[in-house]
Amino acid sequence: MTTTVRTRVAIVGAGPAGLLLSHLLAQSGIDSIVVDQRTREQIESTIRAGILEQGTVELLDTLGDFSRARTVGTRHNGIELRFAGHGHRIDFPGLVGRSVWLYPQHEALKDLIAARLAGGQDLRFGVTVERVEDNDIPRVIAKEADGQELIIEADFIVGADGSRSVVRPAVTGTSQGGYFREYPFAWFGILTEAPASAEELIYSNSPDGFALISQRSPTVQRMYFQCDPDADPNALSEEEIWGMLQARVPGTTLTEGPIFQRDVLRFRSFVAHELRKGRIAIVGDAAHTVPPTGAKGMNLAVADVVLLNRALQALLLENDERLIDGFADAALHRIWKAQHFSWWMTSMLHSTPEATEFDHRRQLGELRSVVESEAGSTFLAEAYTGWPLPAA
Amino acid sequence: MTTTVRTRVAIVGAGPAGLLLSHLLAQSGIDSIVVDQRTREQIESTIRAGILEQGTVELLDTLGDFSRARTVGTRHNGIELRFAGHGHRIDFPGLVGRSVWLYPQHEALKDLIAARLAGGQDLRFGVTVERVEDNDIPRVIAKEADGQELIIEADFIVGADGSRSVVRPAVTGTSQGGYFREYPFAWFGILTEAPASAEELIYSNSPDGFALISQRSPTVQRMYFQCDPDADPNALSEEEIWGMLQARVPGTTLTEGPIFQRDVLRFRSFVAHELRKGRIAIVGDAAHTVPPTGAKGMNLAVADVVLLNRALQALLLENDERLIDGFADAALHRIWKAQHFSWWMTSMLHSTPEATEFDHRRQLGELRSVVESEAGSTFLAEAYTGWPLPAA
Repeated sequence: MTTTVRTRVAIVGAGPAGLLLSHLLAQSGIDSIVVDQRTREQIESTIRAGILEQGTVELLDTLGDFSRARTVGTRHNGIELRFAGHGHRIDFPGLVGRSVWLYPQHEALKDLIAARLAGGQDLRFGVTVERVEDNDIPRVIAKEADGQELIIEADFIVGADGSRSVVRPAVTGTSQGGYFREYPFAWFGILTEAPASAEELIYSNSPDGFALISQRSPTVQRMYFQCDPDADPNALSEEEIWGMLQARVPGTTLTEGPIFQRDVLRFRSFVAHELRKGRIAIVGDAAHTVPPTGAKGMNLAVADVVLLNRALQALLLENDERLIDGFADAALHRIWKAQHFSWWMTSMLHSTPEATEFDHRRQLGELRSVVESEAGSTFLAEAYTGWPLPAA
Repeated sequence: MTTTVRTRVAIVGAGPAGLLLSHLLAQSGIDSIVVDQRTREQIESTIRAGILEQGTVELLDTLGDFSRARTVGTRHNGIELRFAGHGHRIDFPGLVGRSVWLYPQHEALKDLIAARLAGGQDLRFGVTVERVEDNDIPRVIAKEADGQELIIEADFIVGADGSRSVVRPAVTGTSQGGYFREYPFAWFGILTEAPASAEELIYSNSPDGFALISQRSPTVQRMYFQCDPDADPNALSEEEIWGMLQARVPGTTLTEGPIFQRDVLRFRSFVAHELRKGRIAIVGDAAHTVPPTGAKGMNLAVADVVLLNRALQALLLENDERLIDGFADAALHRIWKAQHFSWWMTSMLHSTPEATEFDHRRQLGELRSVVESEAGSTFLAEAYTGWPLPAA
């Protein structure tokens, strides 16, 4: 049995990008169907970090009371860059008049799902997309949870299905089809039951390597330290983990607690060769991956979606192809700046195995240049809090 | 026959650092002797580029009419960063209220030598220093042009004798004794008899590599393009050289002329492990080398000298050792920022053999981030025009 349904925009992936796009399209009366391979429970329980740019929070505000970013999330007015034993605060409002919000991505997803369902969105979980095609009519060919074939016919297909995107090959022509960069290190991440060791995030460059002291809630903290990409998260005792973390933030005393989750996050940079082909486009992690150091992942997905929403409005409501023809270039402009910023924060703060003593001292010279200069600090704060979004 | 002379400060090297130090010391009544292995004619005819920070020009102003930096030199109120076929001007006065001067180093040297000789400076050319020692009395052991031994006894010895410094081993303990970085490329430089192709310097990042379009005078221009460190300067025809240059500044048309000098400049970064030991210090190229991309070489030497002059005044006039004890740290603070800036300009603008397409596009994202942001442009302009000098 095959079910064929029809919509204007078929969105593959119920992550932040796909859900937000369906919300923005609905605001201008454009119907969409969103499908995701995962169940709602899986999506809402996959714990992911989240630093939201002010523009992202403002966009979530359009969900009305559904968005808890400002109530459950925490406004952060700065970060600390720590090196050579001293902390240097980057004051976001003072420098750029903006802030960021610490609001885990899965919490934002709960808000988006609740809002979309309340708005009558056709949102289908447990649907596995097999392929998409753009022949006479753009089609998504999928299987529902019960094994039945589902075909979605649409005017446009959007792949918002993450880094292992099924839609991407239809745009790039190959299974990967992108520009890559690998990094010779990873992050060892923990969740600990402890009060916060700091009110804001601490990004630390130390002789032993990078560490990030982050927060999750008043009683749960998230911390990371640079490790080998092949490190075994279970090879270290809790005492050893605290030793690694403490050594990497000299001058700060961490409040220790039981460690109830540990993982190794490998990271890489990726940008797809193409973001759009005919009536198929990819956004978010399907189109690009950034290392987490710049906190750009979800925000970059949101920026893609803002641009794509405008282009789809023009295309579907006014039959104007100019914006969709310019979509990839417009999105890539921000994507490559964000790739640079993520690379910059990464390279400025981490040690690499091949780094010489010259490189370490140059890094410290770089960090000093940034924190001693209002312009340098502003340049960093602009990128961290997010360049202005195009009008949605 | 050995001649022994006595002075307060023995300065080895009659380059910009040594001569300027003797001038500043004389202003507070501290005698010095300056010696250099080269003849005056050699020093004054060794053609070297020169971008002088505003602070350097202001310091040369204290030479009175001897300084021709403002009359023969040319004030530059900006540079152009060129990439992806477009030029982007960095407006120095608009961003930081300062400028730079294009004034070749050998011209500044003529001014300094004339001023010092007019001021009665003991300045000896053709003196080859064999070693320096800091036992009971600091001593410079040298040979005069006629083979006679010359011993200079002093309260303090300064090595301002360039990258092959004879004084450095007495400070660092080894012949090199420093932090190094090599670069996998060099600059192919030409002097051409032609009118200027641009009013200000053009720093160009192109798919074929870096180029710098610079000026020397209304009728002579200096241009560079990135090449292999082992390139033979005579292997290319003039037509091939112009082809290389033109290809590296797409969007600009260079005015060609006869090429009357060509050279390959290998470059590297170096900072000595120590800048001072007891009553011996090193400054300028004896203490550090920067790649030329940031135009920091001579300016960094001047900054060293300003700090050392203050420290020697305190030491020799007031017997106060605090500033000389802090000299190395104070100088290194600026040196490592300048090392970073020079590395940054180099890495942002050059192609490396191992660079991937990701790296190239990230570079363009970086350049766009800088030119599209007033803060980013200001951060660059601050460094290029020079961080404020400590009061002389």
